Amino acid sequence: MNVSQHEYPNGLVLVAETMPGVQSAAFSLLLPAGAAYEPEGGGGAASMLADWITRGAGDRDSRALLSALDNLGVNHGEGAQTLHTSISAATLGRNLIPALELFADVVLRPHLDDDEVEPIRSLALQTLQSLEDDPGSKVIYELRRRHFPDPWGRPSPGTPEGVASLTPDALREVYRQGYRPNGAILGVAGAIDWPALRDAVGRLFDDWEPRPVPPVVERPTGPDRGHIERETQQIQIALAYPTVPVASPDYYRARAATAILGGYSSARLFTEVREKRGLCYTVYASYESQLDRAAVVCYAGTSADRAQETLDVTLAEIARLGASGVELEELETMRAGLKSSLIMQQESSMGRSGSIASDWFHLGRVRSLDEISAALDALTPESVGAFAAESAEKDLTILTLGPNPLVLP
Amino acid sequence: MNVSQHEYPNGLVLVAETMPGVQSAAFSLLLPAGAAYEPEGGGGAASMLADWITRGAGDRDSRALLSALDNLGVNHGEGAQTLHTSISAATLGRNLIPALELFADVVLRPHLDDDEVEPIRSLALQTLQSLEDDPGSKVIYELRRRHFPDPWGRPSPGTPEGVASLTPDALREVYRQGYRPNGAILGVAGAIDWPALRDAVGRLFDDWEPRPVPPVVERPTGPDRGHIERETQQIQIALAYPTVPVASPDYYRARAATAILGGYSSARLFTEVREKRGLCYTVYASYESQLDRAAVVCYAGTSADRAQETLDVTLAEIARLGASGVELEELETMRAGLKSSLIMQQESSMGRSGSIASDWFHLGRVRSLDEISAALDALTPESVGAFAAESAEKDLTILTLGPNPLVLP
Repeated sequence: MNVSQHEYPNGLVLVAETMPGVQSAAFSLLLPAGAAYEPEGGGGAASMLADWITRGAGDRDSRALLSALDNLGVNHGEGAQTLHTSISAATLGRNLIPALELFADVVLRPHLDDDEVEPIRSLALQTLQSLEDDPGSKVIYELRRRHFPDPWGRPSPGTPEGVASLTPDALREVYRQGYRPNGAILGVAGAIDWPALRDAVGRLFDDWEPRPVPPVVERPTGPDRGHIERETQQIQIALAYPTVPVASPDYYRARAATAILGGYSSARLFTEVREKRGLCYTVYASYESQLDRAAVVCYAGTSADRAQETLDVTLAEIARLGASGVELEELETMRAGLKSSLIMQQESSMGRSGSIASDWFHLGRVRSLDEISAALDALTPESVGAFAAESAEKDLTILTLGPNPLVLP
Repeated sequence: MNVSQHEYPNGLVLVAETMPGVQSAAFSLLLPAGAAYEPEGGGGAASMLADWITRGAGDRDSRALLSALDNLGVNHGEGAQTLHTSISAATLGRNLIPALELFADVVLRPHLDDDEVEPIRSLALQTLQSLEDDPGSKVIYELRRRHFPDPWGRPSPGTPEGVASLTPDALREVYRQGYRPNGAILGVAGAIDWPALRDAVGRLFDDWEPRPVPPVVERPTGPDRGHIERETQQIQIALAYPTVPVASPDYYRARAATAILGGYSSARLFTEVREKRGLCYTVYASYESQLDRAAVVCYAGTSADRAQETLDVTLAEIARLGASGVELEELETMRAGLKSSLIMQQESSMGRSGSIASDWFHLGRVRSLDEISAALDALTPESVGAFAAESAEKDLTILTLGPNPLVLP
């Protein structure tokens, strides 16, 4: 692994991996401007802003900016999540620094013209509308909102009231607070020349001034049991329960327990719900980590007549994981799967730039493949089983969506 | 480019690319068993079969088979499309041949137990139900069904009547007809040893017997204007018009014209519909090719009050492409984007195995990056404009989905 890192005087961190044998280069810029940092009542500001910044920046108008990126063959996306606003892009290695020059304009010198706000607002309202036609995404957004204390589960598309009320000045204030170098991480991977990249990033982002970190007030949310009534064909079932974050010494035990529950095609949920009972096609458990908290999120989508059994079997499998440990064979299967996906993910400059930025956010360093492999090798059925016993079934949040509610424990 | 190919006596074609510097290997097996070859009234057979074959094969039952694949760290998917049933998988290079051994059982020696049919049928019915909750996918499936002559637009999820009526014997007959080596293509890419791979595939698929190619009777479909009434929040708009297939000498002109219409973020549809008018977030034009026919498919999803204008602007842009040619700047932007994505796609063993199998299907050979680059370089605004003028606006199919119909031309 060939990873270099540099922290600039304004706090921006550059972390980059040179990948031999690829021609592409990709970057992932994490800005501390996620939906969690939006002002009271302004739900949707971070997403609207991620659209606004690309509508003209530096000496280019909206169309000239998008054309300049297209002319460099840049495949890019800008969007807000709960913790960050992220900008990711991939192109040929020789076009990386020219692309970063354009994105330095986008981040530091966006026009933020008042005229663009109404089109952006109407697109943001449409995103909220289209979420109503997408019950699988809707239930997961709402699950996170109820499970995590506010603002840590806030859905990035916001609320119709928030999107309707945001003024250009309110959006500019969100920009000033969150688009700051202290707390920003630029992960780069692929065909790169480290000294040239380090110097270029320094030159491009040098005049970006640090800002104070805004205080966050946490508030309890809930309820931990709920149903959203919708005239859908399928019933959506979503569950979450707490686990440990990436920085925890128990992280690998947590990942292993989640994978054994529902992370691959012979995992327990898949076997019990899909293979043995044919209850639904899609059922999984996934691991989601923030800095100080993390959750296991389980999802299933099924027909009305099978929904109650699907929920009951899923809950029974969560309970069984805590109660009766894991087998050596399961542990080995989980290990083979995680190692294989890690190696494959490492072959993509786009995937790699995202994961080194994420590692830096969670740990302040980048893990090598050898470190991860060794940690996975050190796991035993006893250590994973003991972790599952300590952590399962506490503070479960359950949310369903469909015509009728289910019986919840 | 390091591509080797071999045709076995039974007709199976192996085409493989050695990628230096990667540890992974991926394959994509195309079987001539898509939904288009299903018997009359049996809509959904190909998809049900793609599920059935993994429920026990060779000397392993369903659970043992999935565990064996998970133990090799294989990320895999089996599914039917209109023309093919495809099996794709990625793993570490050293596990490729062991994974192929398991899939040789799946393809040649599936158990196809009667007991598994009811669970598979119920999952297939659920897939059809979940499509009703997914208006964006629904409208594209129905557009293809109306645009292409039957069976070439047949949706692979089938119909509720078809799925309900298929007997185990009827499904086994579909297996016997379509799971044949003549017409099958195995594309492999990544960390491979060609002589060892060629020998292993020969040994594993040697006793697979060729079958006659079933005759296909084409029937006209339509209607070419339509509306599906659904109480959705967003209106879905889908259009298709014919273009030339991959094997045509005009292929690159067709791809260029489609990309300039709606293939990148400063393309015409995106600029006119999203940037200038803020009508919707998602609008694009994509190119879809079968062997003898191809189509440009345009899609937009928007709110009721903007739907008519979105449709009108989209139709005006399709007409303008045919009427007033393309500019040099647009051509250069299109070229930069296509070349950059080609190079990036070439860095992924999964992407590469799929595209060499697809090249073989369409052309009977694999194109090199240099060949594609040279063809793109040879395009001029005049040649692309002339193609657009000859081909646009003929035989347009338009389908909308939402509470109320729009005014269609």
